[in-house]
Amino acid sequence: MAAHDSDEVLMRQALQEAQAAGEAGEVPVGCVVVCQGRIIARAHNLTERLNDVTAHAEMQAITAAAGYLGGKYLDECTLYVTVEPCPMCASAMYWAHLHRLVYGTGDPKRGYSQFEGLLHPATEVASGVLADEAAGLMKAFFRQKRD
Amino acid sequence: MAAHDSDEVLMRQALQEAQAAGEAGEVPVGCVVVCQGRIIARAHNLTERLNDVTAHAEMQAITAAAGYLGGKYLDECTLYVTVEPCPMCASAMYWAHLHRLVYGTGDPKRGYSQFEGLLHPATEVASGVLADEAAGLMKAFFRQKRD
Repeated sequence: MAAHDSDEVLMRQALQEAQAAGEAGEVPVGCVVVCQGRIIARAHNLTERLNDVTAHAEMQAITAAAGYLGGKYLDECTLYVTVEPCPMCASAMYWAHLHRLVYGTGDPKRGYSQFEGLLHPATEVASGVLADEAAGLMKAFFRQKRD
Repeated sequence: MAAHDSDEVLMRQALQEAQAAGEAGEVPVGCVVVCQGRIIARAHNLTERLNDVTAHAEMQAITAAAGYLGGKYLDECTLYVTVEPCPMCASAMYWAHLHRLVYGTGDPKRGYSQFEGLLHPATEVASGVLADEAAGLMKAFFRQKRD
């Protein structure tokens, strides 16, 4: 599925969230949820701060978007996330009947696409949007961790 | 992996949670987390009440257990859940490095075991513990929904 013209604009918002995560000592992954042209949720990874493995950016953004909409389903929403979602987050998107997923850089270690059937069959996917910038944040973070 | 003698005792606690979920109009799934012989977290499905697809019993119990322990990892914990976890919850258990998973009835529709590699390789699994009681709660719930 091809990327839309506006995808880069919205992925920049997700990248801002990722940057904020990195500055707070979190793995730099950021996310926004868009519905009818408006950002209705934004989040970044908070697993360290909350001591909670479930506090991935996407999980928080799904919860926040549903809270904003007043309903569980995100079947008219697009979720932008800087890094390919893990199986937990992809499976949450399945339950949310997410309309469209756009992600930046792939995750060869634990990306959902290494498993079959995790996303909802109705979910459209675009990948590689501002991938170099998302990957750059991740590489810089882990380099700093090592040094 | 065989069930332990105490598994039924602890699964009864998870079944109590499942019953409470059903009485509140939620899909009746309940869960407890046990560490060093003590129940440190208990939860039931709250997806309807919270309007949140991520509010499965296991997700809440993992968050609560980590909060209790003050650390993200549940590598000395056993999680009891009445129904086979979905891919989202199994993947959260992966990130939590869960020591042991015990579940009741299987979920042929969306159970994690239909996918490969979702749980952490170090996680031990026992299934079928008080399965009939867990399945009975589910069947009664969906029968009532239909009628």
